[in-house]
Amino acid sequence: MKGYSEWMSRLIQALSKLPGIGRRSAERIVFHLLKAPGDEVTELARLLQMVKEKTLFCQICHNFSDESVCHICSDPGRDKGMICVVEDPKDVVAIEKTGNYVGVYHVLLGFLSAIEGVGPEELQIADLVERVKNGNVREVILATNPSTEGETTALYLTRILKPLKVKVTRLAHGISVGSMLEYTDQATLARALEGRVSA
Amino acid sequence: MKGYSEWMSRLIQALSKLPGIGRRSAERIVFHLLKAPGDEVTELARLLQMVKEKTLFCQICHNFSDESVCHICSDPGRDKGMICVVEDPKDVVAIEKTGNYVGVYHVLLGFLSAIEGVGPEELQIADLVERVKNGNVREVILATNPSTEGETTALYLTRILKPLKVKVTRLAHGISVGSMLEYTDQATLARALEGRVSA
Repeated sequence: MKGYSEWMSRLIQALSKLPGIGRRSAERIVFHLLKAPGDEVTELARLLQMVKEKTLFCQICHNFSDESVCHICSDPGRDKGMICVVEDPKDVVAIEKTGNYVGVYHVLLGFLSAIEGVGPEELQIADLVERVKNGNVREVILATNPSTEGETTALYLTRILKPLKVKVTRLAHGISVGSMLEYTDQATLARALEGRVSA
Repeated sequence: MKGYSEWMSRLIQALSKLPGIGRRSAERIVFHLLKAPGDEVTELARLLQMVKEKTLFCQICHNFSDESVCHICSDPGRDKGMICVVEDPKDVVAIEKTGNYVGVYHVLLGFLSAIEGVGPEELQIADLVERVKNGNVREVILATNPSTEGETTALYLTRILKPLKVKVTRLAHGISVGSMLEYTDQATLARALEGRVSA
């Protein structure tokens, strides 16, 4: 790369591969790091290594965790009778941020996809069935994404969980809080009408 | 942080401090790294360390360099009689990208600023004067930024370089290529008028 030293070029290339970081951002970050105190950079390099080495999957819910059982599954204050099923650890964070959910999670680590060749065996579905069979689970909330794959995954899970005599629910679809009717897409509006509640 | 393990939280915080990376981008990067192959993350951590350890300042032009003399100063194909003076290593990259400049550089590593208490001693100005005195320098191109501080720095340099019988020039100001007159700011338009050339 023009004007850059060998190591700078290589770091810029590596950083550009990260999501949301383009060539220009990568250049800015490298210049920032070269001017930052040495121990700040050392700390960042160490954290990168540590996160990768120390992060495990929780044996129960398959969320990212520092321990073999994650801080949510090991929290005595959480309701183990309610399992929220999500596709990805990101989704756990999104739901935790609402501050409204007191149950536990089950992370599938993906979604069913015929195109990408992902079948039920590739996801943490057998484990979910075991949890429902063994524990005192009252309710499974299916919180997969409202995409074609997410819907397919939810339908599949409904079919295999229903026979286990557990209550299976889905997240409600509808209009976003604070949004305007005229800017709401048709599919969402249709779902909102369909799921109307008495005032 | 809600939903994150200890190490993930710490890495998210460290990444959020980098320029152009907010909380959300940092979260996305951490999830990306946790899913990436381990050696990709190790390589990134290593590059961060190496860039900081291996990057020196070129003894001649003070640009970032892997060697004691940078690849531009040590290139026999570059015209050592022409020195382009810039504030920052970033500016070297910007000028190199034009592909039009065959001379060498001098990086001041800052600009004169009364407010921030930066005087000529804090910048690599004495070194520039030495280069002009010792070498066969025909021309010094002042390519400081068109900011108040950049202009002040350029004026100061003009004053101390002129007595050395070297040609001192400035970058031309004017309308950006491809831009419209009506959207050009007044100061730029004034400079463009002032610096008009015969058609």
